[in-house]
Amino acid sequence: MDIYLDNSATTKPCKEAIGKMMYVLENVYGNPSSLHTLGLDAEKEVTAARIIAAKQLGADKDEVFFTSGGTEANNTAVFGAAYARRKTGNKIVTTSIEHSSVYESCKELERQGFEVVFLEPESDGNISTEQLNNAIDKNTILVSVMMINNETGVKLPVDKIAKIIKKNNAPALFHCDAVQAFGKVPVRPSKIGADLVSVSSHKIHGPKGVGVLYVKKGTYIKPLLYGGEQQKKVRPGTEAVPLICGFGAAIENIGSMSDNLKRTTELHDYAVKRLSKVSGVEINSPQDGLPYILNVSAVGVRSETMLHFLADKGIYISSGSACAKGKKSHVLTAMGLDAARIDSALRISFSKHSEMSEIDVLAACLQEGMNTLVHSK
Amino acid sequence: MDIYLDNSATTKPCKEAIGKMMYVLENVYGNPSSLHTLGLDAEKEVTAARIIAAKQLGADKDEVFFTSGGTEANNTAVFGAAYARRKTGNKIVTTSIEHSSVYESCKELERQGFEVVFLEPESDGNISTEQLNNAIDKNTILVSVMMINNETGVKLPVDKIAKIIKKNNAPALFHCDAVQAFGKVPVRPSKIGADLVSVSSHKIHGPKGVGVLYVKKGTYIKPLLYGGEQQKKVRPGTEAVPLICGFGAAIENIGSMSDNLKRTTELHDYAVKRLSKVSGVEINSPQDGLPYILNVSAVGVRSETMLHFLADKGIYISSGSACAKGKKSHVLTAMGLDAARIDSALRISFSKHSEMSEIDVLAACLQEGMNTLVHSK
Repeated sequence: MDIYLDNSATTKPCKEAIGKMMYVLENVYGNPSSLHTLGLDAEKEVTAARIIAAKQLGADKDEVFFTSGGTEANNTAVFGAAYARRKTGNKIVTTSIEHSSVYESCKELERQGFEVVFLEPESDGNISTEQLNNAIDKNTILVSVMMINNETGVKLPVDKIAKIIKKNNAPALFHCDAVQAFGKVPVRPSKIGADLVSVSSHKIHGPKGVGVLYVKKGTYIKPLLYGGEQQKKVRPGTEAVPLICGFGAAIENIGSMSDNLKRTTELHDYAVKRLSKVSGVEINSPQDGLPYILNVSAVGVRSETMLHFLADKGIYISSGSACAKGKKSHVLTAMGLDAARIDSALRISFSKHSEMSEIDVLAACLQEGMNTLVHSK
Repeated sequence: MDIYLDNSATTKPCKEAIGKMMYVLENVYGNPSSLHTLGLDAEKEVTAARIIAAKQLGADKDEVFFTSGGTEANNTAVFGAAYARRKTGNKIVTTSIEHSSVYESCKELERQGFEVVFLEPESDGNISTEQLNNAIDKNTILVSVMMINNETGVKLPVDKIAKIIKKNNAPALFHCDAVQAFGKVPVRPSKIGADLVSVSSHKIHGPKGVGVLYVKKGTYIKPLLYGGEQQKKVRPGTEAVPLICGFGAAIENIGSMSDNLKRTTELHDYAVKRLSKVSGVEINSPQDGLPYILNVSAVGVRSETMLHFLADKGIYISSGSACAKGKKSHVLTAMGLDAARIDSALRISFSKHSEMSEIDVLAACLQEGMNTLVHSK
């Protein structure tokens, strides 16, 4: 029996999402822009999913724009905001622990002449309110900070940012990458005062290839794509109806976030206890991070070696962000961990379906791995 | 029984594509970038689809980049080429009858300071080699011309463009939007000398939300999206595995393009014959266009009125490009048709599954529509 503990990379689509996609693929194949009945039927399905996503975000349906996933949502937000506001300032404030789709977009803006401040985390892996307060100024047009870090589960102080922007008279839009948070903790753009929020379907048991960019009503961002009239031209292109509907079904199937969180916290705490007893294993994630993500180092064994050792036993975890595919973690580096710990880092990420018994097997196999691999080095 | 003759807007997904998507959603849910077995399994599926698409294009698999559809493929090509070559020139040559995802991208480049020449079709609805030859010069960095027009079926002289670029010493990349051609006539980038070619899945009975941008080996284009290492950074973001595999299955299911074309030509010619007999109907498509698309005007009845009249009888056609959603056709306008014909234009678009009997019903209902609607105006 496989033990899948790589849910921050991607999740297994739920029955409900798959069922809905099947239904739409077979029965609602019109183009939502077509003016005839089949087109209207497709448009209705898209609108229904839009309302579901909006409700989950505590937003209006007109604030929900479907994208091809988290990467496109993040790119649209970062470039769209920077280009829309370039006449009011030149500075962008972000962090060095953002997902690569924010980080690399900001690097590109830096090459284009924007001043980009990449805040480095303190040794606890987090960014402080003071750092943000010092960086955000009258020249700042965009602040892009993630809600939950994808490698460590660190919860960033995103609820403080809107206030700092206001207090420091910054003409900035606030973008929050909530890909790892959505469906696990409440993501309410209006509550945290975000103008732009990115979420993704395949992290919450929906299909790959679809995400949402929340754009606060009245906020102009320059579009990334040009074309037809779809989605008020903020994101043109024929809507991927089956994916959008699958995403909607996955959102409806989240269940009680607080119940899931409680269960996952127990699981996480049990994992910390069990894995800490494995010789050489050190915990990298903070105590107060999102419990769905647990980053540890199995010091003495390279991440990839351990990962393959575990995969051979049917246990699937990762060495860090899947999108970085084996590259040295810039998140753990920024945290100031030593090379031995960075090179041996492992990310264990739970879903609401993860079980205590899986932790027992993981701990035993990790111990076996340490016994086998450290000595054979 | 519904008669769906709006296949240029979108097609009904084939059983094979749906079956493959189901299989992948249920069984191959790993992230292709994950280093463990489940990730490798997903990557293998993506590679298999990439090889299928490459084969269909007569290309190498490393020249195939999956996008979220035709709109993204076209945007990536147009912006990517213009930005990559801006140091060698400032001129872009395209046509006024491109799909909005090329047309509006070029309009945006024009706003950014590029010189954009939008070639206007002659009265036959086509662009001549002479027009292209006069426009493409030493300052031209991008030529973007579609293979088949989506509203009229006109076949543009794309096989002449590479030679003109060479002859006129233009430092230009040649992009061809082949969305309406792919799967219907051979689309071989190397044969027509295109550097960039866009195709889409949902026009050939694959799922919505996925397309391919062919990028000739050795050709650099500036990416539109920034993020992880996926697809050699030309198009980062977690690959939409189920969609990509569904697209692959749809390509494998195209069948014999020449048999389909022969059958559709008969259908098209029969439709021309039948519809020409309906009082007030005039044919807008050229004789030698792609037979899958037939544009006619039912003069005296506004497109949308007729479209709804037919939809009530279970016949689905369109007034033009679905992406333009009711806006006056810029293609027919460019062709110099009079207002009465433009306002009453209807696009009938066939698939390989279309039947002669459907034309009979369409012709009868169109006649009934003319009888009812022209007099009731």
